[in-house]
Amino acid sequence: MPSFDFDLHATDGAARTGVLKTPRGDIRTPAFMPVGTAATVKALYPEQVKQAGADIILGNTYHLMLRPGAERVKRLGGLHHFMRWDGPILTDSGGFQVWSLSDLRDMTEEGVAFKSHLDGSKHMLTPERSIEIQADLLGADISMQLDECTPYPCERDAAASSMQLSRRWGQRSKEAFGERSSQALFGIVQGSTYEDLRRESAEGLIEIGFDGYAIGGLAVGEGFEMMCQVLDVTTPHLPHERPRYLMGVGKPIDLVEAVARGVDMFDCVLPTRSGRHGQAWTDWGPVNVKNARFAEDTRPMDDTLECPASRDYSRAYLHHLIRAGEYLGSMLLSWHNIAYFENLTARMRAAIAAGEFEAFRAQFHARMDEGPDAI
Amino acid sequence: MPSFDFDLHATDGAARTGVLKTPRGDIRTPAFMPVGTAATVKALYPEQVKQAGADIILGNTYHLMLRPGAERVKRLGGLHHFMRWDGPILTDSGGFQVWSLSDLRDMTEEGVAFKSHLDGSKHMLTPERSIEIQADLLGADISMQLDECTPYPCERDAAASSMQLSRRWGQRSKEAFGERSSQALFGIVQGSTYEDLRRESAEGLIEIGFDGYAIGGLAVGEGFEMMCQVLDVTTPHLPHERPRYLMGVGKPIDLVEAVARGVDMFDCVLPTRSGRHGQAWTDWGPVNVKNARFAEDTRPMDDTLECPASRDYSRAYLHHLIRAGEYLGSMLLSWHNIAYFENLTARMRAAIAAGEFEAFRAQFHARMDEGPDAI
Repeated sequence: MPSFDFDLHATDGAARTGVLKTPRGDIRTPAFMPVGTAATVKALYPEQVKQAGADIILGNTYHLMLRPGAERVKRLGGLHHFMRWDGPILTDSGGFQVWSLSDLRDMTEEGVAFKSHLDGSKHMLTPERSIEIQADLLGADISMQLDECTPYPCERDAAASSMQLSRRWGQRSKEAFGERSSQALFGIVQGSTYEDLRRESAEGLIEIGFDGYAIGGLAVGEGFEMMCQVLDVTTPHLPHERPRYLMGVGKPIDLVEAVARGVDMFDCVLPTRSGRHGQAWTDWGPVNVKNARFAEDTRPMDDTLECPASRDYSRAYLHHLIRAGEYLGSMLLSWHNIAYFENLTARMRAAIAAGEFEAFRAQFHARMDEGPDAI
Repeated sequence: MPSFDFDLHATDGAARTGVLKTPRGDIRTPAFMPVGTAATVKALYPEQVKQAGADIILGNTYHLMLRPGAERVKRLGGLHHFMRWDGPILTDSGGFQVWSLSDLRDMTEEGVAFKSHLDGSKHMLTPERSIEIQADLLGADISMQLDECTPYPCERDAAASSMQLSRRWGQRSKEAFGERSSQALFGIVQGSTYEDLRRESAEGLIEIGFDGYAIGGLAVGEGFEMMCQVLDVTTPHLPHERPRYLMGVGKPIDLVEAVARGVDMFDCVLPTRSGRHGQAWTDWGPVNVKNARFAEDTRPMDDTLECPASRDYSRAYLHHLIRAGEYLGSMLLSWHNIAYFENLTARMRAAIAAGEFEAFRAQFHARMDEGPDAI
């Protein structure tokens, strides 16, 4: 019996909308999870994240285990208390950042030994240790199994053996996690771009039994078309009645097309990273706020959003702040972008519930085609 | 007849408390003005500045005339509208930053020609142009006369001729400003460390007639003792019934001792700059939040303050954020520091009104002597 009821309210084609129930509150799906890597969604106050419409945020196990340290977070009352976020938190397993950030030392069946990118200290991440950190020390509401993320492109043999390893790690993660009613564990489908491997991975994970199923190994440079192709051959093999989470994705168009293929949850650093770099996201694409055309544009960035950053500050002021390198520029654009991504998922939920997702999708593509000069 | 009624409610020794009335709201004195150099108090939302207790903020003419440009600010509705601050704004004349930041080119009786530190563009600042920028283009509630700020130390002859120039520029500033009922103009006393020059400067400015009198040429490296000595020989020559503003000062102890000598207004970048560098101000001095002793300190920075940054976040979390180089660390500490400085002036106002300023001052010195390890 899975933890966390998932009530699907409506479907429209492959697109779905519903609510994932958790002891810390409901997660409305499709859901976008802002990334709080180091126990903070960069440049936002926790209240702003919530007001922007986020039901759940993501924490990075790799970063938190190194600084401030998982045992320290536990002693300080757990991640929710530490960072003043009382809604649900999903943590990743740490595996992805071990591969992308650390000075990787040694991978075995047992797990992965690595050196911290911060101070060179040595650490070991196994499926069991990852679960201990996520579920017991940080206190995540949703933990992720440890997996190996293959690069793109990846030869078939390597993709197959890596997927098998991830499946075995999924089994060990499940055993370490045990049965919990107030916390959930998600498995991760791997298999690179190979349809049969993705299917085999999904079936293997379903046999183990998870509370939700993530699609891993994307957002690693494969591009939009390949992402869509992999989703086309993966989501049909995932259980209808459990949430599906596309890890590390993505741009607004990626979200729209993944929802069209039956994905329920997303996370990405894009909105906050773009914000710090002076970009504001819109349906028409990312807008470079530094652009001279905004220097005396007294309109707000997007007054259809409830967010003060989007509605109450002029583009001219945002332009000035970004040009001047002021904190407030990064703060406001990060806030706007999170509000935009949350609003995008809210509009998709409404469109699916109304049976109008295809119309929404067509309008979204039309705006994309117009491009950001249209705003 | 000066603009802006100044109601002195109480005095205690030389210390004074009152209210400077402006069309955009009351300024309770002693007042600390957060510095919004580039049309933003760094890393704070305007609402936070107000909630922290600030009645007035300062804008820097030099920065704003170069970016986004004074005429542009005017076209965008003036500085208040541009930056979403509806309370009073005081602007400096731009002179100080011309000396400290620009590639200074030529100073004459007429004014000062300089090159922008941003792009090398050439500009001219005269007393008349400074008033035009401040009062007409930015729309400052309180404008400052253009003056020359002498370095420390400064030979007597140089200090005397510089002070005379500043007085002549004060006269021209007053003529350019004219008579206005909804905006005010302050003169600036110069004269370096020479008692007779400070007195002569004050008397010359009073003869011209300003709405308030600033004490310039301090906070340039002269040190605490010298600052107190200059105040001792300057404030007695300033009109009792007009506000006195000590420019660019300073640390909390500087504020306390300047208030003890009859100063009413202050501005300083210290709280926000310290905050960005991981320091939290307290009565016991500046605390380095990076210090290992805070790593598991679950107490808030100062729960006697109403400010969420001071009251709702643990020292352990602030420590983590600063160590991790996170925006939120700078945001929270800047906010706390502004709240602390505003609260310090609020406590001084209350102590003066109660006739207990000497007790407050003694307690403040005792805490300083204990040092920041006491918190």
